[in-house]
Amino acid sequence: MATATHSIPDRITFERTPVTYNHWKLDFDGPVATLSMDVREDAGLSPDYKLKLNSYDLGVDIELADAIQRIRFEHPDVRTVVVTSLKERIFCAGANIFMLRGSTHNWKVNFCKFTNETRLAMEDASENSGIKFLAALNGICAGGGYELALACDEIILVDDGNSAVSLPETPLLAVLPGTGGLTRVVDKRKVRRDLADFFSTIAEGVRGKRAVEWRLVDAVYPTSQFKERVARRARELAAQSDRPESGPGITLGPLNAVVADDSVTYSSVTLEIDRARRVATLTVAAPIDEQPTTIDGIMAAGDQFWPLRAFRELDDALLRLRLNEPLIGTVVLKTVGDQASVLAVDETLLQHKDHWAVREIIHFMKRTLKRVDLTSRSFFAWIEPGSCFAGSLFELAIAADRSYMLDDPDQPNTIALSGLNGGSLPMSNGLTRLQTRFLGTPERVDEVLGEKEPFDPQAAMDAGLVSFAPDELDWDDEVRLAVEGRAAFSPDALTGMEANLRFAGPETMETKIFGRLTAWQNWIFIRPNAVGEGGALTAYGTQKRPEFDFNRT
Amino acid sequence: MATATHSIPDRITFERTPVTYNHWKLDFDGPVATLSMDVREDAGLSPDYKLKLNSYDLGVDIELADAIQRIRFEHPDVRTVVVTSLKERIFCAGANIFMLRGSTHNWKVNFCKFTNETRLAMEDASENSGIKFLAALNGICAGGGYELALACDEIILVDDGNSAVSLPETPLLAVLPGTGGLTRVVDKRKVRRDLADFFSTIAEGVRGKRAVEWRLVDAVYPTSQFKERVARRARELAAQSDRPESGPGITLGPLNAVVADDSVTYSSVTLEIDRARRVATLTVAAPIDEQPTTIDGIMAAGDQFWPLRAFRELDDALLRLRLNEPLIGTVVLKTVGDQASVLAVDETLLQHKDHWAVREIIHFMKRTLKRVDLTSRSFFAWIEPGSCFAGSLFELAIAADRSYMLDDPDQPNTIALSGLNGGSLPMSNGLTRLQTRFLGTPERVDEVLGEKEPFDPQAAMDAGLVSFAPDELDWDDEVRLAVEGRAAFSPDALTGMEANLRFAGPETMETKIFGRLTAWQNWIFIRPNAVGEGGALTAYGTQKRPEFDFNRT
Repeated sequence: MATATHSIPDRITFERTPVTYNHWKLDFDGPVATLSMDVREDAGLSPDYKLKLNSYDLGVDIELADAIQRIRFEHPDVRTVVVTSLKERIFCAGANIFMLRGSTHNWKVNFCKFTNETRLAMEDASENSGIKFLAALNGICAGGGYELALACDEIILVDDGNSAVSLPETPLLAVLPGTGGLTRVVDKRKVRRDLADFFSTIAEGVRGKRAVEWRLVDAVYPTSQFKERVARRARELAAQSDRPESGPGITLGPLNAVVADDSVTYSSVTLEIDRARRVATLTVAAPIDEQPTTIDGIMAAGDQFWPLRAFRELDDALLRLRLNEPLIGTVVLKTVGDQASVLAVDETLLQHKDHWAVREIIHFMKRTLKRVDLTSRSFFAWIEPGSCFAGSLFELAIAADRSYMLDDPDQPNTIALSGLNGGSLPMSNGLTRLQTRFLGTPERVDEVLGEKEPFDPQAAMDAGLVSFAPDELDWDDEVRLAVEGRAAFSPDALTGMEANLRFAGPETMETKIFGRLTAWQNWIFIRPNAVGEGGALTAYGTQKRPEFDFNRT
Repeated sequence: MATATHSIPDRITFERTPVTYNHWKLDFDGPVATLSMDVREDAGLSPDYKLKLNSYDLGVDIELADAIQRIRFEHPDVRTVVVTSLKERIFCAGANIFMLRGSTHNWKVNFCKFTNETRLAMEDASENSGIKFLAALNGICAGGGYELALACDEIILVDDGNSAVSLPETPLLAVLPGTGGLTRVVDKRKVRRDLADFFSTIAEGVRGKRAVEWRLVDAVYPTSQFKERVARRARELAAQSDRPESGPGITLGPLNAVVADDSVTYSSVTLEIDRARRVATLTVAAPIDEQPTTIDGIMAAGDQFWPLRAFRELDDALLRLRLNEPLIGTVVLKTVGDQASVLAVDETLLQHKDHWAVREIIHFMKRTLKRVDLTSRSFFAWIEPGSCFAGSLFELAIAADRSYMLDDPDQPNTIALSGLNGGSLPMSNGLTRLQTRFLGTPERVDEVLGEKEPFDPQAAMDAGLVSFAPDELDWDDEVRLAVEGRAAFSPDALTGMEANLRFAGPETMETKIFGRLTAWQNWIFIRPNAVGEGGALTAYGTQKRPEFDFNRT
């Protein structure tokens, strides 16, 4: 199954190791790491385009994401990451246009989503892990190149009379700087919006003193001083960090996924694909073997410590699903295993949450759960006897669009909460999933967190923790109809609907309605699924049934 | 010029009077007004569709907007508005599908934008004017019908075993409830999002006790009690208001616009259309005659009091521009007249801001300025000698995407602020335009507000109040090139860009990036202007120039 019109391999994989990077070089000098972009033109995911001028495709960004992840886990002594380029007078020309042109809509959207998540992972490391990012722009920095710089804490631009930062998407390509560019210019760097308007419409960009005055960069230095100034600032930033003086880190080994045509199997996670029904089943298993409870034990277990291992597998499975299975519209989330073992791991994590490695693990779990929230597929959780929706794994049940819990007196079936549900795993809106769920009854959050006993189906319904609790007579029909019903809807409408329902909470309603909802609505209104010859709006009221293109974006 | 594929009249107008309403009936009983929907099937804007089952088109909503506006100004003693229907067992079936199907993309988008603004005007009246809205759902309430109910403070649904509230857009039409429906369900009414997910996918909706339990409505009553319960609750809501016991109100007379092929001329506002260049010029004139300074004087002047008259004209011009001139991409904002007279009016408004009528005038000015922010055209302000960008009219200059101020020592040219710039005219993000402008340097807000002297071009540049200040040698070229450059860009990219740059401020960055920016990006990625045969992404790097459809949405 082709995922793009380019001859991209049928199955994209997301595991990388620094020794085999094609596009980045990672150097260490005490607390300062240097991450240098040096894109190999002929090493794109597809041979159909050349990655000239440090332009990038998804493969380049997968390596970047890997590098940041490894710095966090494998190099606890790194406190500043200098992001720069090894190409002379070129920092980065942005996303490769020829790649974009030849990609399907859903590929483009998922490419942008992944690059956004990677940049947010940098900002997450800055906010939570004591790692500052310093963009050292040694040359032209356009579009996605500048968006990468914007994700850094500070930006230094060489002042050589030529090098500029720019967002040429609108004037040259009639698209937007969609990897956070427009948002970060006005919201993060707080560039005045009239200046941002001007900046975003001139292909040549802004350089030198004006770039500083407009807040587009933090400093400019002539070529003769550039390297020294970057090095000095990198050391200054490093001095502010609370990271350890030295290692050892946790080495992230291979996941060793077993990939078949319709499944991907890991040690604790299984992804099963049913293409005929357009449904995937994603199952996470609780730990089977004994888990460490001390820092020494956790460091000895390393990447085999269950929460790190299981969530890395979950993360990998979600990414494979997004990019390799565009026709899968619904994901059934399941868990299996012993609730007590998950609750014990959660307890261990909370107990040691101030240790750098445990901190990294918890933030990684958080980021993986955000990937669920941000995945434009419908998620339904099946809570069945033998399942393990407890603590951190219960987050999957409330990350789901709906949850169904079997209520059969002959087969005990419970869910349980842990301290991790109380604040360590927030959503993109800054609230926990419980806070978001109980926006209308905020007192419920502490009530359910204070409950020491597991919730049986009736208690879970009463507490508002599950959506439905069918009995054993209704269960099979109800979950089957839920999935079949979902599969019959327009994927565009579902994507828009889910994106609007999943993130209630902090924003002003007006900006949300006009900025978000209207945006999705516009998009859907021009999709063939609504207004095309076979679209639902067109077919409504006629004898014809709507015909959908089921690719999800 | 057709604005939609339906045979809708070439020019839509927005003035209505209750005696000629086709679709609504407005009754008064002391502090309670009843606004009853009774849509005339054959009185749609186009004869191509029938407005069955109280379904609506733009014409129905224009009357609704007029009714709300008149209640605010003409009926100061009204404290509760009951929104109901005169059709038996039918409240409202939502936006008319046949109308939607036959409309162009930009018509659909602007239809939704106007209906959103109307519903927000109801919420604005509730929040700021002491008018509560009570939806009395006497029958089926689907889609846009339920979205109208959601805009009310409270919703009472008849419990007749049949009447339900529903959002059937996704399951039936593959579109979204785009008039705030999804947002208000989870953010305003705080319906749990798993329940909202289920609700938004079942065409038949939810009724009776479940509708109350899920927070979709506030109460249900059997048919026998319905009217009495509605009346009782309406009186209870009225008791909370701070509106005056009795009138008189301010009667909103006709605007008497003079409409020519390429212009609309009012007493203080002129809209000139240059279709060849796709540019409009919108000019607002300061008051010429003496303005009242006391409440008695203001009430005697009534709708001829300059701020009410001028902003009503501005509002009308903006709406005509949106709906009747889809090919106009750029609007040049100009002002003329005596700054002192506008500053004096602002002072009068501030002095009497707690009087109900002045309160209404200020909130109406605020809502009109929001229409500028929300209009998807590029706005450039030309600040020239003789202009009057002072106080409330200066808001136009910072509502603009950019401002250009002529710096010619031979022709004095200034701008000035008033107390109204300090908090009375906030944007949709809840901040003033000055606060939004100076997000990066918040201390500037009070600095510029404290400045008693007008700003000459250099002072305005130094203070960050204007974008550019070309001298007399450069002025003509610079403003011409700004307009010509803008006109050459993709309107879709500009719409998305402007929507993202205009509303910096309160939101979380992540939700903004994923919810808003990605949404616009998705939309643009599938627009023919980017990826169609003649789109800019397709044409990039070839010898072909991109070909755009210049209709704005």
